[in-house]
Amino acid sequence: MNFHIKHDSRDIYYRNPFGAVPKGKKVYICAVTDRFLEIYLNIIYFDYTEKIVKMSVRIENYNKYVYYHYIYLDKDYVGLINYFFRIKTEDGGYVHYGNNSDGLGGQGQIYNSMPIPYQITVYEPLKVPKWFKQGMIYQIFVDRFKNGNSNGEITNPKHNSFIYGNWQDEPMYIRDNQGKVIRWDFFGGNLKGVIEKLCYIKSLGISAIYLNPIFKSISNHKYDTGDYKSIDSMYGDEKIFKKLCEEADKLDIKIILDGVFNHTGDDSVYFNKYGNYDSEGAYQSKDSPYYNWYTFIEHPDKYDSWWGIDSMPSINEMNPDYVNFIIEGKNSVLEKWMKLGAYGWRLDVADELPDDFIEKIRNKIKSINNESILIGEVWEDASNKISYSNRRRYVLGRELDSVTNYPFRNAVIEFLTEDIDSYTFERKILSLYENYPPEIFFSNLNILGTHDTERILTVLDKKGENKIQFLKMAVTIQMTMPGVPLIYYGDEAGVLGGKDPLNRKTYPWGNENKVILDFYRHITALRNRYDSLKKGGIEFYHIDKDVLCYKRTINKENILIVINRSEHKSFHIIADEIDQEISALEIKILSNQIEL
Amino acid sequence: MNFHIKHDSRDIYYRNPFGAVPKGKKVYICAVTDRFLEIYLNIIYFDYTEKIVKMSVRIENYNKYVYYHYIYLDKDYVGLINYFFRIKTEDGGYVHYGNNSDGLGGQGQIYNSMPIPYQITVYEPLKVPKWFKQGMIYQIFVDRFKNGNSNGEITNPKHNSFIYGNWQDEPMYIRDNQGKVIRWDFFGGNLKGVIEKLCYIKSLGISAIYLNPIFKSISNHKYDTGDYKSIDSMYGDEKIFKKLCEEADKLDIKIILDGVFNHTGDDSVYFNKYGNYDSEGAYQSKDSPYYNWYTFIEHPDKYDSWWGIDSMPSINEMNPDYVNFIIEGKNSVLEKWMKLGAYGWRLDVADELPDDFIEKIRNKIKSINNESILIGEVWEDASNKISYSNRRRYVLGRELDSVTNYPFRNAVIEFLTEDIDSYTFERKILSLYENYPPEIFFSNLNILGTHDTERILTVLDKKGENKIQFLKMAVTIQMTMPGVPLIYYGDEAGVLGGKDPLNRKTYPWGNENKVILDFYRHITALRNRYDSLKKGGIEFYHIDKDVLCYKRTINKENILIVINRSEHKSFHIIADEIDQEISALEIKILSNQIEL
Repeated sequence: MNFHIKHDSRDIYYRNPFGAVPKGKKVYICAVTDRFLEIYLNIIYFDYTEKIVKMSVRIENYNKYVYYHYIYLDKDYVGLINYFFRIKTEDGGYVHYGNNSDGLGGQGQIYNSMPIPYQITVYEPLKVPKWFKQGMIYQIFVDRFKNGNSNGEITNPKHNSFIYGNWQDEPMYIRDNQGKVIRWDFFGGNLKGVIEKLCYIKSLGISAIYLNPIFKSISNHKYDTGDYKSIDSMYGDEKIFKKLCEEADKLDIKIILDGVFNHTGDDSVYFNKYGNYDSEGAYQSKDSPYYNWYTFIEHPDKYDSWWGIDSMPSINEMNPDYVNFIIEGKNSVLEKWMKLGAYGWRLDVADELPDDFIEKIRNKIKSINNESILIGEVWEDASNKISYSNRRRYVLGRELDSVTNYPFRNAVIEFLTEDIDSYTFERKILSLYENYPPEIFFSNLNILGTHDTERILTVLDKKGENKIQFLKMAVTIQMTMPGVPLIYYGDEAGVLGGKDPLNRKTYPWGNENKVILDFYRHITALRNRYDSLKKGGIEFYHIDKDVLCYKRTINKENILIVINRSEHKSFHIIADEIDQEISALEIKILSNQIEL
Repeated sequence: MNFHIKHDSRDIYYRNPFGAVPKGKKVYICAVTDRFLEIYLNIIYFDYTEKIVKMSVRIENYNKYVYYHYIYLDKDYVGLINYFFRIKTEDGGYVHYGNNSDGLGGQGQIYNSMPIPYQITVYEPLKVPKWFKQGMIYQIFVDRFKNGNSNGEITNPKHNSFIYGNWQDEPMYIRDNQGKVIRWDFFGGNLKGVIEKLCYIKSLGISAIYLNPIFKSISNHKYDTGDYKSIDSMYGDEKIFKKLCEEADKLDIKIILDGVFNHTGDDSVYFNKYGNYDSEGAYQSKDSPYYNWYTFIEHPDKYDSWWGIDSMPSINEMNPDYVNFIIEGKNSVLEKWMKLGAYGWRLDVADELPDDFIEKIRNKIKSINNESILIGEVWEDASNKISYSNRRRYVLGRELDSVTNYPFRNAVIEFLTEDIDSYTFERKILSLYENYPPEIFFSNLNILGTHDTERILTVLDKKGENKIQFLKMAVTIQMTMPGVPLIYYGDEAGVLGGKDPLNRKTYPWGNENKVILDFYRHITALRNRYDSLKKGGIEFYHIDKDVLCYKRTINKENILIVINRSEHKSFHIIADEIDQEISALEIKILSNQIEL
C-alpha cells in the first residue's frame, strides 16, 4: 500500500491549539493523506486507558484527504494525553503513524510496530509570579562564594574538618579506600559573604538568588541535613539569614532555598547515628519520635538510604509527622524560613518525592505567600517523566512552577560542540515548548551548569582558543531563549571546573576574567531591557545547519538572534527583512536591523 | 669435660677498666675456672682481623685458676674490640665462652659453636658541652606546637594544602589509593609560637629545644627539604629564627636543628621535579648544577630515593659540591644557621650517612662553635651498629656527641608493661653503660617517645586507670637515669596518640592534664637540683623482679630511686641503709632516707 500521510503536532493546521492545553478545552487533531484511507485516532490517557475513535474525513482540493477529530477534554481531566494514528491496510491489518523516533514532536513517521505517540499535556491553569518568570537567577554554593569575615577567619569550623589553605586551592574530596568521605573540606564562604556581594550580584541583573542548602549539616554541600531548623553555624545564623533576605529585598532580589526532603543526614537531630545531637534519634532507639520517618530493614544498622549512601537515610515523606514537621504544622520548616524572608524553594531530587508531598508543599507555600515559587530538580523533560514506574504530575499545575531545564543545557552544548545541528536544536527546544504549560515553559530554569555538572567553560574548553567566543554563544542563547536564565556563581567570571568537586571551586574575587564578566553584564542587561526576550514568542529561521537563527517577538518588539558556530564559514542571512552576512563564529543580536 | 668458668665484663675483677676505654690504654681481662685448663683469648679487631693469645694463669687459693691477659691498645687504635675465650678440651678440640645469648654483657656462657663475643669500645676521648650533657631537651614538631599569630591566622598557607578546622582535630594523612600523600595538612604552629612559649618551656627546666625540620618544604614534617637555606614561610623567616635563638638564649635555652642530609624533597631547589623553583634542578636537566647530587638510573624519572619513596630522592652525600654546600663552603648550610644562633644538629637517619660525612660535620660545627653538639638518629645500640654491612664509628669520638636512645625507651616500656623484669632492665641499661664512651652514655638522648613513636601515655594506656601512675614511673626513670632526658612536646600535658600521624597531635593549650604537668614540673626540678641525677654513677639493688631500685651517687650526694610496678604487692626494701615498705605502684625517691 502506497500512500503519503502527514501530521505535525506543532502546526496548528494539524493540531489546535498549540502545545499543552488547559483542562476542559477541546483539541482539534488532523492528519492529511493523498488518498482515501480508514484512519483511527488512538488516544491513551494518563492512567493508560485507551480509546480508539474512527476519524472523520473531508476532502480538500483534489487529492487531499483531511482526517480529523476533536478531543473534548473532561472539565476535570488533568494529565497527559498521548495519541497516534492507526491506518487500516488492504489486508485488514494496521500500520501506525506516530511521533518521530526521537519523540520530539512535529512531523511524525510511519511505524509497522507500536509507535512512539504524540503528547498533549492537559494542565490546570497556574500563574507563576512575575518576579520569577521574568527574572534571572544566581546560584550560590555558599562555602565557595565569599567569606564575609573581614580577616578571612572561618566561623565555627567543624570538629575534624579541613579548611583549604588558600581560597584559590583546587577542591577535592578526602575519601577512604572505599570512596567514603572521611573528612569534610571547607573554604569558608558564608552568608555574610553573600550579603557583602549583593550589589555585585545585582550588577548582573539578577532578581533572585538560589542558595544551595544552608541548614546545619556536617558536609560542605549540606544535602545531608542535620537540622532543618538551623542555619549551619559556619554559614551564619537566623539573624544573618534574615538580614540577607532584608538586604536582598532592598535590591529587589529574592532568596530561594534548597529543600532537601527525601533524606536527612545520618548525623542529624532525627537519625542521630553518632549521638552528636541531644535528641533521641531513630538510629538510637525504636522509641525515637523520628523512628517512623525512616525505613529500617534491621534496626539500627540496615536502613533505606538515598542511592544506598549510608550517610543519607531516606525519609518516608508521607509520614504524617514528617508532613507536619516540614510542611503543615505550626512553625513548620517551610513556614519558619519563609517568615524569615525566603521566597521560594528548589526541591532536591523531586523524582524521589511523592506527587502528593510536592502538592502539599505548593499549597502551603502559596498560602503563606502567594508570590512564592516552587522549582523541582528534574533532569529530563518533566512533563512526561516516569519515576519508579510512576507518571509524574510535576507540571500539571498543582506542583511545580519551574523545573531545572537540563534538556536546554544539553541542547546548547550539543549544538555548540557539533553533536547536533541547528535544526535538531530547534526541535529540542520546540518539543519542550510544546510539552510544557506555557507558564512553566517560560519559567523553566535555563541552566548552562550547576553544582552537579561540569562548568560550561570547561565543556567548551575543547574549542581551544575560541572557547570564550563559544561561551558567549552559549550565554547569548541562554539569555535570549524563553525561560529563566540561571547563572551558576563564577561562570560569569570565567571559572573552569570539571565534574564534582571541580565544579565547586571558589569565586575568584579580584581575578575575574574581565572579558567574560563584561559580556555577562552586557547580555544580562539586554535580557532585562527587552520584554520580547523575557516573554515573547519564538520563531526559528533555517539558514544552515551551523547557524542558529531565531526571533523573539512581543507586540511590536522584535529581536533576531543569529549565531554562527562555524569556525570557518560565513553565511548570508535572509530572515525577517534582514539581509546580512554573518562571519565565522559571529554572534548577532538585531532589533529592527540594528545591532544591540 | 666438667669445669666451671666465669667472666663478668662489668666486674672490674674480671675486666679492668670498666666499659669503653680511651685509645692507647691497656685492658686487663681474666676468666676464673675451678681446674687447670688451656685457655686462649680470641680477640677480633674492628676490621675483623683476629688474634688468638694463650692466656697466662695463676692459681689463687685452692682450686681457683685465674686466666688473664693484658690487651695493650695501640696508641692510634680506635674501634671495637670483641673477644671470647677458647678452652681446649681433652679431645684436642675447643669449647668457647662468650657473651650471654642476648649480648648484653656481664656474665657469659659456654658455647659449643661460635659464641657471641664480648665488646670493648676503644674511643678517642671527647668532651660533650656541659649545657647539653647536664641538660634537658624539649622536642617540638613546629606545626603542632603553637600558632603564634594572635588571631590564629595561618601565615603563607601552601598552594593546595589543608588547614585543620580546629586546633583540637585529629591529624590524618590525605592519601590516594596507592597511599601517596596528595595534599599536606597543617595546623599552623610556627616559630612565633615557640617564642611565645619559651617561658612555659623553661618552667619545665629545659636547657635546649630540638626542633623537627624547619626549612622550606611542602610537607608538614619537612623531612623532604625544599631549600636548606630558607625557613619555611609558614614557620617564619630568618629574622624570626634569629629572634627565637636570641630570646631562647636569654632563658639559657639552646636551639638544636634537624639536619636532613640523606635526601631532599623532589619539590626542591635542587631536584625541582615540578618546576616550582626558579633553579635548574637535577630532574629537569643533566646540566643542572645539582645533577651529581643524585643517582639517576634513568633520567629523569628513575632515581634512587629514601626507602623507595619517590618524593625523597637520595643524595650522594660525599659529592664534593654537596659537602661544600652543606658543610665546608663559605656560608654553608651548617654555618649559616649556626651563625644565626643554632647550637647543634640532630642528624636524621644517621645510618644512611657515610661516617666520613658525619665526621666532616662534627669538625665543621666544632670549629664554628666549640660548644655546639651533634646528635645522631640511631635506633639501636650505636656502639656496635652495622649499617649496609658497614661497622659504624658513631661513638668512637670523632662523630656524635649523643644518640637517640631508643634502647632506653624500649627497656622502660618493657619493664613497665611486664615484658621484662627489673633484672633484665638493669642488664639492658648496664650494657649501654658498658658499650658507650661514658661521655656519650651520659649525653644520650633518653627518650620516652618522639615524632616517630607512639606517645608514652598511649603505650601505657593498657594499664587502664593506673596509666597515669605508670606514666609517672616512666618519667621518674627517665629523669633519674644517666643520659639527657628529652620531653616530646605535649607528653607533659597528657597528650595521647598512637603511631604517626596520631603522635603529632597539637599541644592542648588550656586543656593540659594538670596532674601530669605538675608531676613533670616536680620531677624535672629534682633532676636539675641534684648533681647525682645528672652525672652520678649508678648502682642497682635487687629487691624483686617487680621492683626497680637503683642509686645515683656523686661525692656525698646519694639518691635512691625505688619503683614498684606491681599493682597488688608491696615489698620490703633493704638497700643503702634504707629499711622501708614500698606499696603497690609506689614511687620513692629518697635522699638520706628522706623522700624528695
